[in-house]
Amino acid sequence: MIAELVTTGSELLLGQIVNTNAAYMARELNKIGVDVCFQTTVGDNRERMKEVLSHALSRADLVITSGGLGPTRGDITKEVSAEVMGRSMALNEECAARLKSYFARIGREMTENNLRQAMIPEGAHVFVNHAGTAPGVAMEANGKLLTNLPGPPSEMKDMLHRSLLPYLAEKYGVSAVTVSRVLHTFGIGESMLETKLDDLILAQKNPTLALLVRPTGVIVRITAKAESEEGARRLIAPLEEEIRLRLGDFVYGADDETMEEAVGRELKSRRLFVATAESCTGGLVASRLTDVAGSSEYVKGGVVSYTNEVKADVLAVDRDMLAREGAVSDAVARAMAEGVRRKLGADFGVSTTGLAGPGGGTEETPVGTVFIAVAGNEGTTAEKYRFTGRREQVKFRASQAALAALRAYIKKYGQ
Amino acid sequence: MIAELVTTGSELLLGQIVNTNAAYMARELNKIGVDVCFQTTVGDNRERMKEVLSHALSRADLVITSGGLGPTRGDITKEVSAEVMGRSMALNEECAARLKSYFARIGREMTENNLRQAMIPEGAHVFVNHAGTAPGVAMEANGKLLTNLPGPPSEMKDMLHRSLLPYLAEKYGVSAVTVSRVLHTFGIGESMLETKLDDLILAQKNPTLALLVRPTGVIVRITAKAESEEGARRLIAPLEEEIRLRLGDFVYGADDETMEEAVGRELKSRRLFVATAESCTGGLVASRLTDVAGSSEYVKGGVVSYTNEVKADVLAVDRDMLAREGAVSDAVARAMAEGVRRKLGADFGVSTTGLAGPGGGTEETPVGTVFIAVAGNEGTTAEKYRFTGRREQVKFRASQAALAALRAYIKKYGQ
Repeated sequence: MIAELVTTGSELLLGQIVNTNAAYMARELNKIGVDVCFQTTVGDNRERMKEVLSHALSRADLVITSGGLGPTRGDITKEVSAEVMGRSMALNEECAARLKSYFARIGREMTENNLRQAMIPEGAHVFVNHAGTAPGVAMEANGKLLTNLPGPPSEMKDMLHRSLLPYLAEKYGVSAVTVSRVLHTFGIGESMLETKLDDLILAQKNPTLALLVRPTGVIVRITAKAESEEGARRLIAPLEEEIRLRLGDFVYGADDETMEEAVGRELKSRRLFVATAESCTGGLVASRLTDVAGSSEYVKGGVVSYTNEVKADVLAVDRDMLAREGAVSDAVARAMAEGVRRKLGADFGVSTTGLAGPGGGTEETPVGTVFIAVAGNEGTTAEKYRFTGRREQVKFRASQAALAALRAYIKKYGQ
Repeated sequence: MIAELVTTGSELLLGQIVNTNAAYMARELNKIGVDVCFQTTVGDNRERMKEVLSHALSRADLVITSGGLGPTRGDITKEVSAEVMGRSMALNEECAARLKSYFARIGREMTENNLRQAMIPEGAHVFVNHAGTAPGVAMEANGKLLTNLPGPPSEMKDMLHRSLLPYLAEKYGVSAVTVSRVLHTFGIGESMLETKLDDLILAQKNPTLALLVRPTGVIVRITAKAESEEGARRLIAPLEEEIRLRLGDFVYGADDETMEEAVGRELKSRRLFVATAESCTGGLVASRLTDVAGSSEYVKGGVVSYTNEVKADVLAVDRDMLAREGAVSDAVARAMAEGVRRKLGADFGVSTTGLAGPGGGTEETPVGTVFIAVAGNEGTTAEKYRFTGRREQVKFRASQAALAALRAYIKKYGQ
């Protein structure tokens, strides 16, 4: 069964609000096996809305609208829906009584236009609104189902869960559940990933496989359909195992796990502490590490050394080295990581020094150049990176690489 | 001119990500007078995408897609677009050369599938991608214009502003314009703001006035419509002046200006330096200060003191005081601000110490309690706050309050 979501309202069309309703409905419908294949947004314009709804009914079996059920003249979704389904509107006494008692309860006078909300397409099934005043409706014609939900997210969600999903499940039976599993990678590009997973991508059917670029790195999304959530997870498990085998430590987490959580897990399980020394990331590595609840069990703290004086005075980076090598250099990155490790009495020191831009680049050291070092019992490792993007993107990517380098060091040397 | 936005990608259809691109594009297009009347989302399915694009071209003059320009097999938007516009694809040498030099620059091997991004519909106008690898295109047929933009928001935005909007403005001219001006406030609640601006809110027409709660504080949005951007700004100016007069220093910035930029401006114009000492904010204050380009002119650096040892050893907070008052206290906040100011040789020290949660709260010091201090030539000020929300929200709100406290100190004492 193919579904189309139609969200209405000029504030969506103008981009004054982001369409979170469409995403929410799609996710929930998907879970009960409804295939959302189209989402359309249209304003409160009668002709255009009519065209959109007619077209939706021509390509989908199930059309679900959200928005335009309010009491004002601009709220036309129910009327236009009735028109394309070939029905007239009539006052529904039950809805009218419910409205009257609602207004009596909140002690407000009911105005005439509120009664518009009790006008219902003939023969339609009514969904009671437990979170507001506008009832929803569902109507069938020619094997197609058209339903109207309210626009305010709290009302839409309440009606979706309380009325529409059970209604659909009963009507069509729950055919399948869709479950997605996301694997987060770092340090490997989209095309290299595709090369490594090429045969799996070509052979994909159920589960399907997708590669998506995110600011944190490329993610691999495995999506399976089955009769139950458990069944879907059973389909995902062997494919996930195969992918993890091929990608090894490039995978740092799954689903909602972040790099800072992945690093935190490694530190916590070993009861070891980290300290940060940051130049170009300006505190972002420390801030991300401490975004994780319980991070005080493995974070000592850090130093943001935005000037050479601080590098020398607080982190004990040799002044001659700073002058000779420059602040953005392999040697200084190493000295910063070692310095902060010693100064704060941590097991590991991780450092960043580079140019976040937009100014300050030279031919030899262009904007985006970052040196990252990790110091520990087994010595110090350092690597040079070249990140692209705006200042904040360079900062974020450098922080991600620093956390990844720390994770790699811990995993390699165990300590 | 009627426009339709077509966003593609199964992660949108499945509701795994919210469609922020459609809202952003609609807003920006509206500003130059393009009427977005339809927004459609479709997955990476050839037949359905073809149907959606053909239908869009039948009801709109301008169709703009976002998504599906990547190097993988699932990226089909450009191909399908070429097909509905009746064009074949050919390798574009310039695009290929640009790709090759991109990969050479970042020192990564270019795989064969990357070259797919250099395949361009014949006769199409190419938009160079300055934020990634996928070029955009624009092609005309039968008085209709179809353009493809990339899906990653940073790339879409860059190409929209740099290439598409100027291209459209030149092609169609600009008709009517809506301009919004946003004033950012901190330290004043929504209802107090409404009381101060009550008569202006009641009298609003053009410009309109709205108060919106944001994580940074409450914002006042003034929106005007006029024939030209200049005309709209002329309508906004006197109202903005009146509002600023009434709100005084509660307003710290306008439009895209952030608190960190507002603070930076005060420091830079006085040629003074700040240093941070952070406990519960874990480096976020320093990271936000250094998000601003040129911040090395007024940020010395900072210390993240996540343990008492670091507070004592690096910031020279008295150990007896720590034991007596506890780390989350007025006295320790003051000592941290003074300590980091001295240690890093800065004009101002700003500190945070508190409980970000979720654990660790007591009756006396519940989660969300934060002490913030500012030290300078005129002595040290400190204040106690109680923030609500999840861990990251407490961190962010504390960082905003710390920056605001620093700004207030500088403005008060001028130094």
